[in-house]
Amino acid sequence: MQGLSMNPSSKQLSSLSVVVAAVLLLGLAGVAHGGRRLIVSRSEDEPCKKMTVYYHDILYSGNNTANATSAAVTKPAAALSTSHWANGTFFGLLVVFDDLVTEEQALSSEPVARAQGFYFYDKKEQYNAWMAFSLVFNSTAYTGTLNLMGADLMYEKTRDISVVGGTGDFFMSRGIATLSLVAYEGTVYFRLKMDIKLYECYVKDH
Amino acid sequence: MQGLSMNPSSKQLSSLSVVVAAVLLLGLAGVAHGGRRLIVSRSEDEPCKKMTVYYHDILYSGNNTANATSAAVTKPAAALSTSHWANGTFFGLLVVFDDLVTEEQALSSEPVARAQGFYFYDKKEQYNAWMAFSLVFNSTAYTGTLNLMGADLMYEKTRDISVVGGTGDFFMSRGIATLSLVAYEGTVYFRLKMDIKLYECYVKDH
Amino acid sequence: MQGLSMNPSSKQLSSLSVVVAAVLLLGLAGVAHGGRRLIVSRSEDEPCKKMTVYYHDILYSGNNTANATSAAVTKPAAALSTSHWANGTFFGLLVVFDDLVTEEQALSSEPVARAQGFYFYDKKEQYNAWMAFSLVFNSTAYTGTLNLMGADLMYEKTRDISVVGGTGDFFMSRGIATLSLVAYEGTVYFRLKMDIKLYECYVKDH
Repeated sequence: MQGLSMNPSSKQLSSLSVVVAAVLLLGLAGVAHGGRRLIVSRSEDEPCKKMTVYYHDILYSGNNTANATSAAVTKPAAALSTSHWANGTFFGLLVVFDDLVTEEQALSSEPVARAQGFYFYDKKEQYNAWMAFSLVFNSTAYTGTLNLMGADLMYEKTRDISVVGGTGDFFMSRGIATLSLVAYEGTVYFRLKMDIKLYECYVKDH
Repeated sequence: MQGLSMNPSSKQLSSLSVVVAAVLLLGLAGVAHGGRRLIVSRSEDEPCKKMTVYYHDILYSGNNTANATSAAVTKPAAALSTSHWANGTFFGLLVVFDDLVTEEQALSSEPVARAQGFYFYDKKEQYNAWMAFSLVFNSTAYTGTLNLMGADLMYEKTRDISVVGGTGDFFMSRGIATLSLVAYEGTVYFRLKMDIKLYECYVKDH
Repeated sequence: MQGLSMNPSSKQLSSLSVVVAAVLLLGLAGVAHGGRRLIVSRSEDEPCKKMTVYYHDILYSGNNTANATSAAVTKPAAALSTSHWANGTFFGLLVVFDDLVTEEQALSSEPVARAQGFYFYDKKEQYNAWMAFSLVFNSTAYTGTLNLMGADLMYEKTRDISVVGGTGDFFMSRGIATLSLVAYEGTVYFRLKMDIKLYECYVKDH
């Protein structure tokens, strides 16, 4: 007999799909240099990696050049952005950012990364946004990037976006980031809490 | 013994890569709360989840404020967008949208999601676009989002973009969406059929 | 017998996660039409697919309509983009492109794909960009697309972005692209070397 035997019960498997196996990598010879193993979480509650960080967006207002870390690069589509709310919902306003990311809430706390990317407002009836960005880590704890994208449903207390890839210490990672607004000052500053949970991790072989 | 065995012939495996196994999760004790299993499809023809939806883009034209669900937020790069076609190919025009998505073709049919994101035209010689967006589900059938991106090759009858992640009921999903134009009215309205096929699904443990 | 068995020792597995198994798919009956197997690389040094291509960006300058393959569609946020460098770092300038991609360095060498997407500059202190795009292949070697996104950290000699999905010959692929600047001419032309390494490939069954 060769290869892999699977007793008759394996025939219960539909031809549709395969279930990723939970088995140890015992007995595999010759792990290559730079070896990595893919770890897949078995539960939403137990990511293979997890961290909470705070994202600080300081929008350019016309007179805060030194502090601003983001700026609008398009104008709102006026008719749509004021069609429901007198003061506008910024429909179509696109903001580019290079924002500070910290481990603690305070803007003055230890930086852990920069968030580089963009968001834009996309709803007539209320504030709502869509965003894509990279978390760029360059600290003693981590180097590398995580790449994220998704709908920032501002009317939800918390909302999830996708971690679609990673590099460096986050090589090939995937996961979910849960966002929530934790502070803001007018339209110039807001702070998002980002709970990042990775469910696919490539860990280094020892 | 039951399940899976691997005799020495497993050494035939190149050091290059591992093939994901098709085995049942028999014998695994202690499934965690919130448990999920990764399902990987074994064929392009048999996604682990599949749905067809219709995307309706109603572009702001200057006098359709109430109905419009999208708006241009940049102007075309004039020289490039008219260099080949007298009437322009809109090179550089970027559109932000919060578009209705339905289960049936008709704009008036049952909504299943909103598509929130953007597209832009990116070719001199012909109409061609690139897009990234989220399908935001909030119905009795589904809650959660799917995140998509890719080239909308308008000169192809059908074209594929990537589903790069998901949240909620679509936790960590990946797949392909096949797009085709099924109706349009001038430059104000167009309807895309989206055949969404997920090939990696995280299903809940029972 | 050696190798891998799934006896009670599998209980050593934490409930946290599962390790993707390295086993052959021998012995599986009834492979479906359009069958594909997921290959997961075991090492950063040994991608399941690998290629090097060159990306040529020819920016519209006002008088190169015939040759230009990209154009700025927003203006830099003036105050931010000149706050550190006298000549500006283009903060907020967004460029849409339909760029030529070749196998050899020379702009005149054999085309292998188009790169369709966008980048924008996002840092006050120095040149730095973020990009998302599709590599659209349509040659004898390949048809299909690869979808990429990430931070183009221009101050790093090489930087990694994520390959988050693929279609056609690159069905469902994931990986990393390592970028480096290999040539430029003022602000009108630059060439990036892109080392593309896929670590998850869906290969066709024979």
